[in-house]
Amino acid sequence: MPLYHAPTADFQFLLKDWLGLDAHYQKLGIGDFDSELASEIIAQGAKFALDVVAPLNREGDEEGCHLENGSVTTPKGFADAYQEYVANGWNAMLGSADYDGQDLPYTMAVPVHEMLNAANLSWRLTTMLTESAVLAVTKHASDDLKNKYLAKLISGEWTGTMNLTEPHAGTDLSLLNTKAEPQDDGSYKITGNKIFITAGDQDWSSNIVHLVLARLPDAPKGVKGISLFLVPKFLLDDNNEPGEANQVSVGSIEHKMGIKASPTCVMNFDEATGWLVGEENKGLACMFTMMNDARFQVGLQGLGAAEASYQGALTYARERVQSRAPQGVQNPDGKADPIVFQPDVARMLLTQKSQIEGARALSLFYAKFMDIEKLGTEEEKVHADKVLQFLTPICKAYMTDMGLETTSLGVQVFGGHGFIREWGMEQLMRDVRIAMLYEGTNGIQALDLIGRKLTRDGGDMLNATYQAFNELVEAMTDNDNKALAQGLLDDWRASSADCLGMDATTAASAACDYLAYTAYSLIGVLWFSMADTAAQSDNTVIATAKQKTRDFYIDRILPRRDAHKVAYSAGAESTLAIAASEFDYL
Amino acid sequence: MPLYHAPTADFQFLLKDWLGLDAHYQKLGIGDFDSELASEIIAQGAKFALDVVAPLNREGDEEGCHLENGSVTTPKGFADAYQEYVANGWNAMLGSADYDGQDLPYTMAVPVHEMLNAANLSWRLTTMLTESAVLAVTKHASDDLKNKYLAKLISGEWTGTMNLTEPHAGTDLSLLNTKAEPQDDGSYKITGNKIFITAGDQDWSSNIVHLVLARLPDAPKGVKGISLFLVPKFLLDDNNEPGEANQVSVGSIEHKMGIKASPTCVMNFDEATGWLVGEENKGLACMFTMMNDARFQVGLQGLGAAEASYQGALTYARERVQSRAPQGVQNPDGKADPIVFQPDVARMLLTQKSQIEGARALSLFYAKFMDIEKLGTEEEKVHADKVLQFLTPICKAYMTDMGLETTSLGVQVFGGHGFIREWGMEQLMRDVRIAMLYEGTNGIQALDLIGRKLTRDGGDMLNATYQAFNELVEAMTDNDNKALAQGLLDDWRASSADCLGMDATTAASAACDYLAYTAYSLIGVLWFSMADTAAQSDNTVIATAKQKTRDFYIDRILPRRDAHKVAYSAGAESTLAIAASEFDYL
Repeated sequence: MPLYHAPTADFQFLLKDWLGLDAHYQKLGIGDFDSELASEIIAQGAKFALDVVAPLNREGDEEGCHLENGSVTTPKGFADAYQEYVANGWNAMLGSADYDGQDLPYTMAVPVHEMLNAANLSWRLTTMLTESAVLAVTKHASDDLKNKYLAKLISGEWTGTMNLTEPHAGTDLSLLNTKAEPQDDGSYKITGNKIFITAGDQDWSSNIVHLVLARLPDAPKGVKGISLFLVPKFLLDDNNEPGEANQVSVGSIEHKMGIKASPTCVMNFDEATGWLVGEENKGLACMFTMMNDARFQVGLQGLGAAEASYQGALTYARERVQSRAPQGVQNPDGKADPIVFQPDVARMLLTQKSQIEGARALSLFYAKFMDIEKLGTEEEKVHADKVLQFLTPICKAYMTDMGLETTSLGVQVFGGHGFIREWGMEQLMRDVRIAMLYEGTNGIQALDLIGRKLTRDGGDMLNATYQAFNELVEAMTDNDNKALAQGLLDDWRASSADCLGMDATTAASAACDYLAYTAYSLIGVLWFSMADTAAQSDNTVIATAKQKTRDFYIDRILPRRDAHKVAYSAGAESTLAIAASEFDYL
Repeated sequence: MPLYHAPTADFQFLLKDWLGLDAHYQKLGIGDFDSELASEIIAQGAKFALDVVAPLNREGDEEGCHLENGSVTTPKGFADAYQEYVANGWNAMLGSADYDGQDLPYTMAVPVHEMLNAANLSWRLTTMLTESAVLAVTKHASDDLKNKYLAKLISGEWTGTMNLTEPHAGTDLSLLNTKAEPQDDGSYKITGNKIFITAGDQDWSSNIVHLVLARLPDAPKGVKGISLFLVPKFLLDDNNEPGEANQVSVGSIEHKMGIKASPTCVMNFDEATGWLVGEENKGLACMFTMMNDARFQVGLQGLGAAEASYQGALTYARERVQSRAPQGVQNPDGKADPIVFQPDVARMLLTQKSQIEGARALSLFYAKFMDIEKLGTEEEKVHADKVLQFLTPICKAYMTDMGLETTSLGVQVFGGHGFIREWGMEQLMRDVRIAMLYEGTNGIQALDLIGRKLTRDGGDMLNATYQAFNELVEAMTDNDNKALAQGLLDDWRASSADCLGMDATTAASAACDYLAYTAYSLIGVLWFSMADTAAQSDNTVIATAKQKTRDFYIDRILPRRDAHKVAYSAGAESTLAIAASEFDYL
């Protein structure tokens, strides 16, 4: 497979020109950061992703992970790459400076995360979950736990995991029954089985910090009786170094469709010692504080895989010579033309490109609001939180659905060669397929959007999101395109407002189509906005190609919006008319 | 994974009630066949698919194929299953009675083929290609070659392969350069390398008959200089039994995303002895006579995998208990309800079901016209051939695109478990992905539809296809639905006629969206027709569920039609505006 290269010019355009990064940092009072530093960090991140992580991707898929004598081994080179990542400070990008983190803006870290996902999804996953653990511990753990664990999680000396799912409790965590027994010393004995635990064990770090959902003895039933516990692989000794092994073991590792180089573990807790994080019975709320971030990060996995696939397909389409282009001979010295000139291949490439660049804009727009939520005024924080809450399920579901569509198109551009493992195109499709499933399936994201985010406080988050996008529209300079963007945005708000009165059943039936309708609409607005900015870019290819890609998106992708609207507007009747017994004709 | 079961009741409804199989056979003068015999054959085929072939599917994927000392070994049990298939006469279903075939109608064989695909795509593939070889030899080979090879290919004692693709010549066969040197004895020496040769070697049969495209020494350039040759693995001795080994060898076998139990071989021909099939330089035409059938068969692979995935998802959705359904408690004795009651899960299941049953109807409608093309009057044959030519790219591309969409939905219904290999849901998705690529990529199908089938003779095939579907509409009894079906069909014809004047570049840009527009339209017509017939069915579940599924299709799937129409109507400009160098911003 052609080697992945960093989409540096697009990052630079989006951050500096489109989002106005320098003014953004000034406004947030972090004027020591600027777009030049962002470029430097992205360049260094690109170097790490390309030189260290990407070369391990194919072999990692072939080798997979192994469980022997209770310990997991990851593929050759993976642990070394992690040590280098930690040594170079990448793990600490977003961590609090109070615990030796770098407190970088999200607008600097998100491009690096996209590139790591593009380079090697399996490898990236472990560090992503450690970041989630850092968030949970930072926001909810006691000072004692923070002092013992946080700096090492931020540096990456130790990694973190999330232990939620049990065999009978996935989407419905109210059913979980892992138990936590309080001990006299303030600790708890945790007993239960968890499945689908990413990096539940590995050979990268000297300790692993498991965050585990469990029930206290007299806890209320359902989700209101779930608490969060910190359960280390090795208990800390008097020097706060890993000492005695805790009663935590790996039951097995899963054999999966993709992300084979990431160990997905069945974890057994057998009176393992743990400590409460946050309040009793508020464990789910603790998990939800980091859910925005984790779900957004999974969306970025879709984007990263999509970009890698697009690059592979584009390189191949430029090199593969086959048939003549119908618009005329392009390669007179050869017997045939490169397939990039075939209109149907151009259609596939632009279906990738227009959605990838749209999703990248969405991800950096999201990152900007994460910066604001962290550093803005109180009022700005409240606004940013609403925007982020609304956009989170859209980023997660749309960007991963798009990830599957575009990686499949990448295979298609290669023809039969796309199906052969050595080219790597099929691996991207297998790897990214998980992203539609974990951190809440895409159906759950859609229910979250239409059932909670859209309707809460009479459409308050909807209005905040409208406002955020409307600012982009108002800043546009071309009046014709501005009017089109405004129309698109206003249509979307009006249609969304119409959904506020839906009953729960109708909303559940409409959910996925409403989410897709929303995603195509908002990315349409982003395309008008990007193209408007690009017209002034110094990069002449960006100046023209962004506008051409907008045209393609409007012509060929945006029409999906209406199909989804018609579909969700049909109501629940035809979806629920069939009785469970009527689905087949036995 | 839950075991596959045969969709017998649906076959019976579609063949007997909907297509009127008994009258169809009477009209064709084969009144000794009837719907009762069809049911019996389908029941026996189901038994073979379920009992013999399906149990090998998961293990075959894990074990894969091996090449040692130049010979391919397929997974355990595969060869035995093939012997049983041959012994029971299944391979000979469609073969001519002149060569000991059974001359069964396609309307009987197609359901059996769908079930074999559903049970084990890898296993089925070899027999499918043998059927293609039988067609080519039957239609084009000399009597001498027929007498030597045809009966054994029909029985399955020997298998057949298709050798078209070369490393630099896939879609564009004009570039191929395998050479054929005429010998004094009337044979030819074939030299060249072919790739992606399904079952190029295996451990199933005592001989393998390769059909190979190659160029004669003074052949014209391009596709008009390609001839077809029959090249056996073992040359026949004086008793027409396999004797001396031919100069044919396997260079390697491919490591693939799916269909891992089917050996995909690199074949080397090194002055191998072969014989001309058909006329010199008419090889491509010979291949095209079987293309309809082979492409349709690949469409059936999409359908089979989709059905298997749907069955798995449905079983899981009925058993998996998680959360309460928003429309009310469904399982008062449990803590949660089966997820089949969740509206979004019902949406996914019905997205599968409505497209699968629509595609099955399309496949049997197609099979009916294959019967007519074989046995009808001359006039009927001409008409049937037009309908088949038009529908072939639609069956191939739509049914395989649908295969990927629905197998991915099957994974999605399983949540995280769908990604784990042991459930088998992810294998279906990996296996079916190839069907969008081989026998001409789906993009090539779309170009064939819009560039050749639609426009030839001023829309002659379009009109024949319209007529065929219009007969279904005219036979409907419910006037309201009949009017809707008529509107849908007439709209489609009018839009299609508008495409007749497109230039080649615009048509190429529109191709895939036009094909999808056509498929969703025509399957909509089939749904109105099926539901109309079903209202009179003795099977009470079919009587009601077909109408409910039609409603879902019209509400939730058919809106895609308009999105594809808007997309293809946009013209080629935005697709071709970007120069090859402008696709990225380096």
